[in-house]
Parts: sequence; structure tokens; C-alpha cells
Amino acid sequence: MRRGGTRRDTRSDDNLGHTRPGRPVRQASLREHNLGLVLRHVATAPRPPSRADIAAATGLTRATVSALVDDLIGGRLLAEVGPAPRTGAGRPATGLVLAADGPAGLGLEVNVDYLAACVVDLTGAVRHRIVRRADQRPHAPGDVLAAVAELAAAIREAAAADRLAPAGAALAVPGLVTTDGLVRLAPNLGWRDVDVPRLLGSHPALADLPLTVDNEANLAALGELHAGSGLANFLYISGEIGIGAGIVLNGDLFRGARGWSGELGHVPVRPDGPTCRCGGRGCLEQYAGQERLLREAGIAADGLSPDAAVARLTDAARAGNPAALRALREAGAALGVTIAGVVNLLDVDTVVLGGVYAPLAPWLRPPLEAELAGRVLTNAWAPVTVRESVLGGDAAVVGAAGSVVRAIREHPARWLATAGR
Amino acid sequence: MRRGGTRRDTRSDDNLGHTRPGRPVRQASLREHNLGLVLRHVATAPRPPSRADIAAATGLTRATVSALVDDLIGGRLLAEVGPAPRTGAGRPATGLVLAADGPAGLGLEVNVDYLAACVVDLTGAVRHRIVRRADQRPHAPGDVLAAVAELAAAIREAAAADRLAPAGAALAVPGLVTTDGLVRLAPNLGWRDVDVPRLLGSHPALADLPLTVDNEANLAALGELHAGSGLANFLYISGEIGIGAGIVLNGDLFRGARGWSGELGHVPVRPDGPTCRCGGRGCLEQYAGQERLLREAGIAADGLSPDAAVARLTDAARAGNPAALRALREAGAALGVTIAGVVNLLDVDTVVLGGVYAPLAPWLRPPLEAELAGRVLTNAWAPVTVRESVLGGDAAVVGAAGSVVRAIREHPARWLATAGR
Repeated sequence: MRRGGTRRDTRSDDNLGHTRPGRPVRQASLREHNLGLVLRHVATAPRPPSRADIAAATGLTRATVSALVDDLIGGRLLAEVGPAPRTGAGRPATGLVLAADGPAGLGLEVNVDYLAACVVDLTGAVRHRIVRRADQRPHAPGDVLAAVAELAAAIREAAAADRLAPAGAALAVPGLVTTDGLVRLAPNLGWRDVDVPRLLGSHPALADLPLTVDNEANLAALGELHAGSGLANFLYISGEIGIGAGIVLNGDLFRGARGWSGELGHVPVRPDGPTCRCGGRGCLEQYAGQERLLREAGIAADGLSPDAAVARLTDAARAGNPAALRALREAGAALGVTIAGVVNLLDVDTVVLGGVYAPLAPWLRPPLEAELAGRVLTNAWAPVTVRESVLGGDAAVVGAAGSVVRAIREHPARWLATAGR
Repeated sequence: MRRGGTRRDTRSDDNLGHTRPGRPVRQASLREHNLGLVLRHVATAPRPPSRADIAAATGLTRATVSALVDDLIGGRLLAEVGPAPRTGAGRPATGLVLAADGPAGLGLEVNVDYLAACVVDLTGAVRHRIVRRADQRPHAPGDVLAAVAELAAAIREAAAADRLAPAGAALAVPGLVTTDGLVRLAPNLGWRDVDVPRLLGSHPALADLPLTVDNEANLAALGELHAGSGLANFLYISGEIGIGAGIVLNGDLFRGARGWSGELGHVPVRPDGPTCRCGGRGCLEQYAGQERLLREAGIAADGLSPDAAVARLTDAARAGNPAALRALREAGAALGVTIAGVVNLLDVDTVVLGGVYAPLAPWLRPPLEAELAGRVLTNAWAPVTVRESVLGGDAAVVGAAGSVVRAIREHPARWLATAGR
């Protein structure tokens, strides 16, 4: 029904209604602006505000607020809850909240050793989640995407039982993605020039939804950004079989000149180190990637899910197994060398360890921080904070689903227009 | 006369009159906006436009344009030139140009082995320039800054003979600078927590001017950006005794979370390489810094100016001297390894070689590009362009002076207000 939402709609965080200098604010864009203002006020208010509360907080008239709220309720973006507590004389007012059965976001993820799907409601809550562990490398991209579509069908059915209807879908991929959704390169999947919208968009489970495709670390970083971490500047590191990064600066995802930033796994650690799948040598992935880490620790991961393999590694580390401890120490040091270079270059003040690095953080952090202490110029007066991801291994798929609902929350007028209101 | 211009005035490129959503455009800010519009039109017009040309191009009334132009002429920002060629009937109109004797920018630079000063007029032309070659490391920061102030006095006297009066001064320093102008750390100068505004701002040659302090690579990158290179996304590399970088993205300098981005010289090339002045090990400076390069090439640089030493190196390379060629090959490869990591992380599409790397580019580029070809993920379909700086060794000091006149050109109303008009 609403095909063709451009990719920029959900990918861009930075054009939220800023007017150009000297351009008059048109009547239509004023309504757009005010719809967004009311919705944001409800979303961030400490308790469900009444129409009068919103009028007082925004400076809009009560009549304007009432008309806007009616539109937002009609578009299933807001819902009324029981009267707010009386604060004075008069009839107690009805409170307003984001609709928990309004439009939802469908998040999908292809990674090297799993597929995932989730549905997030307008409040950002994860309502449904499915993960299928299996090595995707033996399969053709079309087959992998068909399996993703099956996950999408299953989770949509479950969500429908909760009266949740996705308004759009976003797919996270561990690779370089163009703004058209073409996966130029995903070295660890062995994908090259895979036209995801063509292969996935025609599947019955997804044909009725606008679909966007983005790098998994970017989506995970956005998920982390909006999960209430309170951080505006950080390097999010996604540790999987590949290692990606999402760079958040001043509250915005930094995508690079052409949208292909964040390939942290292919920053050289030792120029003449082992050959990498990307064709380079001595890339960070060769020192701190999940497979290398498990192999060096002597963990036989074949046939194990990544969660189980990583759990075995944490068990071994906890038991003081020398090979496990050495592998973690070396991976942490390699991460530290690379991140020190990133901090000297980019001046981020926080590093968030995501993916498999989150559960391994107790062992990775000491050698990592030692490298930062010895190599970061600003460390003496402005040390870098290293912390674990809030969302953990779900960050990318939750970030993907969140990007759909965030686009609606940021541009409610667009949603109302496409929803035919 | 106009002390206390905040540092942000000239450092920030990104708040050029953008209105906040929903805020009405006030009458005063409308005039500000229109003054900027008229000035920009004159600055970028292919031939001196008349008042009528400006009215036609901007959509403002002729009366409004005339009033604005009168203000800009009164403030010495615009000047009239002979009548523009007749294009139709009627009296030929007077053309308008940026005033070549209007407010100017004073650029200053402290580097490890030289001091420099220059004066740039409102059109961006370099009108005066002084360089004093001498190793600054043996001197205390206060003495170095006193010598800079003497250069400033000398160049202001020369400029005054041309009726050029600096409206502000900007100092380029090879180190980490806070927004207050405090040099937190300049490893190659041995400076730590040097309060430049206090030490330099009270000198008679500078006491009457607003002073800003910034990192030299940042100012050089801004100089390159505004020198008409046409590039909106690039990594500018400043090769001196230290190696700095200015990162330009979407036409803006990218300063990092706290303003300390660009320390490319301290990105590790080999984690266990030689100890660096910063306390780290195996930093890029240890493989590609000017001193290392000359030493490896067997050039005795003592007593030579950097230009003369670098000229000796290019002579040796041209003559096929094996040590010189090997030193350049190794430096180029080390630069390539580091830049490959930067491109994989940040996705810049152009690298500009500045400082001593500009004259050495013929020898540095082949090994550098070989590393990029082997290590950059996007290289197959979107190769990185490596080119020499347009401004060469003057980029930082010219960029510093340019930052002063750019601030005036971007905010003419502010200039008119402070100039008492």
C-alpha cells in the first residue's frame, strides 16, 4: 500500500524540518512542524500529558492542540488513557500516550551465522523477536533472503495477533550498502552487488511494505543512540564474525562521504599480518574477529551457535584457561591499538562494545584500555570511556525496526498522508 | 577596538543563519540575511554586478538592494568599479566588487621549524607574507609567541602601506587546541597547556584584534576547501615534523566530539614500532614524519631550512639515490597503510597531500596508492583520489588569515555592527 518510501526517509536523521534561511514557513509545513511538536512532547513527557498540558508546554492554542491530537489519534499514533490526576479545579483531563497498537517497525537482519527479525512498536518497545542460528555462507544470497522473508512472514503473523501492523521494514546487512539498497560488498558473507530490494521486496511477506537496507553496525549504533544511552558521541563496535563500527557524532550517525563508513574490521593492525578475506593484510578482523578469537582460545565452535560458542569462551576465561585468557588479551590489545588510532583521528570520547564483545567485555576491556592509555594523545585530561552495549546482540535488528518507527515519530505528517488521513 | 569576538565566530562553518524550525524570522535577522545574500552574490558573480543585477538575481527590490549596498560600501566590504558594459538602453550602471582595501585577515603560524605570518584581503588574495625559518623547540612558548607578535607587527606595518587593516588574527599551531585557545598539547613543540590568548593577546601588535587559535591542519584544510579546490569531502594531510590531518566532510571541517580530531601522525602503523614523542609506539610520524624521512634518506638537515632540506631530498630522488628512494617508498607505504584504514573507517574519497608531502608527491604517491588498492574495500568501484595541496606549505597560515575574512563575508551584519555602522 505504501511502497516507495525513499531510503533517505528512514536513514537520514538530520533533516527534521529545518527551514532554509529566508524561506517563509508555509501553512502546510507549519502543520507538519506542529504535529511533530505534539508527538514529541507526548513521547518525552514524564507522565501522560493532557491536551491542556501540551498547549501550555508548546505555546500552541488549545484549539490547535485539540485538532492536532485528533489527527494523531485518528492516524493511530496517539491513544488516550484514563484521566490524568487532578491538579486543580475542573473536570480531570484525559492523558495521551504513544499508541502501543499503532504502526510498528519490522526489523530484519542477515548476519554471517544467524538471521533475525523483530517488531518494535511506536514507543520503541520490542514486542516480538525471532532468531535463527545457521551459517549463511554456504547459501546463495537469494536463498538467504528468501529465508529472511519467511521469518518476516512468521513475525508479522505473531504481531497481527497483537494488532500491530508494520509500517515499513528495514534490513541490517554486514556490508557496504548503497542508498538504493544494493549490497556492494559483504566480505564475510561473500556477497557482491546483491540487489536486495529486487530479491526481497517482491516476496509476499514484504511486498506491501517500504523496505530499506542498511549496514548492521550503522543500525546498531542508531539503536544504541535511541535506546536512551544518553550518549551523543560514540564509536559503536559490532563484534561478529566481521567487525563493523557505527560512528555517532553530535547525536547523528556519521555515514562518510559516500555512505560506506565504519569498516573498522579492515583497519590494518599489522601491515604485514595474515591475509584477510577482503584481500588486505593484517586487518583488525584477523586479530579480534569472533572466529579468530574462538580458534585461538581452542574453542571448537563447529556446530555451536555463536551464543553457545561465546558462552563456552566466557566459561573458559572464568575458569582461568590460559589459551582463552591469552586469546582475549590479544584481541583486546588489537582492538585497543585500532581504537587508539580512531580516537586520535576522530576524537570520540566513548566506545561502546557491541555484539559478542559485550559479554566478553570483562576480559577485553583491561588490555584495550591499556592501549588507549599509552596511545591516545588526549587520554591524560580527557580519557575515553569504554562500555558495553545496552542492546547487546540484538542492537542491529532492534535498531532496524526502530529506524522505521523513528521515521514516523519524526515525520508524523508524512505518515498521516500516506495512511490516507 | 573589537576584542572578544568569540572563537566560534571564525571556527564554525555550520551556523550560517539557519533559522530554527517554527521561529519567526525577525526583522533584524532578515537584514542580516539579506546583507549576506548581497555580499555572496557579489563575491561569486562572474563579473562585477550592478545593483539592478543583484536585485534581479536575489528577488529583492531595487530600493532594498541599494540600501544594503550603501551599508556594505560604508562598511568597506564592497567597492564600486567603472560602469558595467551596457546591456541595453539607459545609463550604464556601476559594478560592484569586494573591497580590496577593506577589512583583512591576519594569519599567523607557529610550527616546529618556522614561524609565518600573512595578510589576506577580503577577496581571499594573499597580499603580504613573511616566513622565519628557525627551530622553535629550544625556546619557551612565551618567547616563541613574542617572536610571532614581532612578525605580526612587521606584516601589519607592510599591510598598512596598502591601506589594509586586519579585522582579526588567527594563529595556527601544530597541536590540540581548546575552544578558548589553550594549547593542551603540541608534542613536537613540547608545549603543554600553553595559554596563547594570555601570552599573545596582550602584545601591542595584537592587543587591538580578536584572536583565535586553531590546529594547523584544520586551518590548512579550511584554506584548501576555500581555495576553490571544488572538493567537499577530503582528508587533508599536513606533512611537517609532525603529521596532522584536517577532515572535511560535506563542505564542513569535522572537528570531532571535543575539537581534537585529526591527529593522524599518532595513528599506529606498527603497534610495537619505535617509541614516539607522544609516548605511544609505532605512530605514523615514526615512519613518515619529515625528520625520519630525511634521516633515512641520509640527508643532513642540520642548519638547513626545511624547504632546503626537502629540496635536497627531491634532488637526491631525481638523481636516483637509492637511500632517498627507499626512504620515500617506505614513507609512502606507511602513509598508505594508515590512509587505507582511515578510508575504510570514514569513507573519504579524496586525499590531499600538504606541507612537505606536496613536493614529494611524485615519489610518495605510487607506494601510497598501492597500499590503498590492496586495502580499501571500496577501491574496486570507487577509488580514492590522491592529489597535492593547492596552497602547498602556506596552507595553514593562509587558511588562518582566510578564516578571519570568511567570518566577515559570512556575517557582514556582525562586521558592520562592530565597525560601528
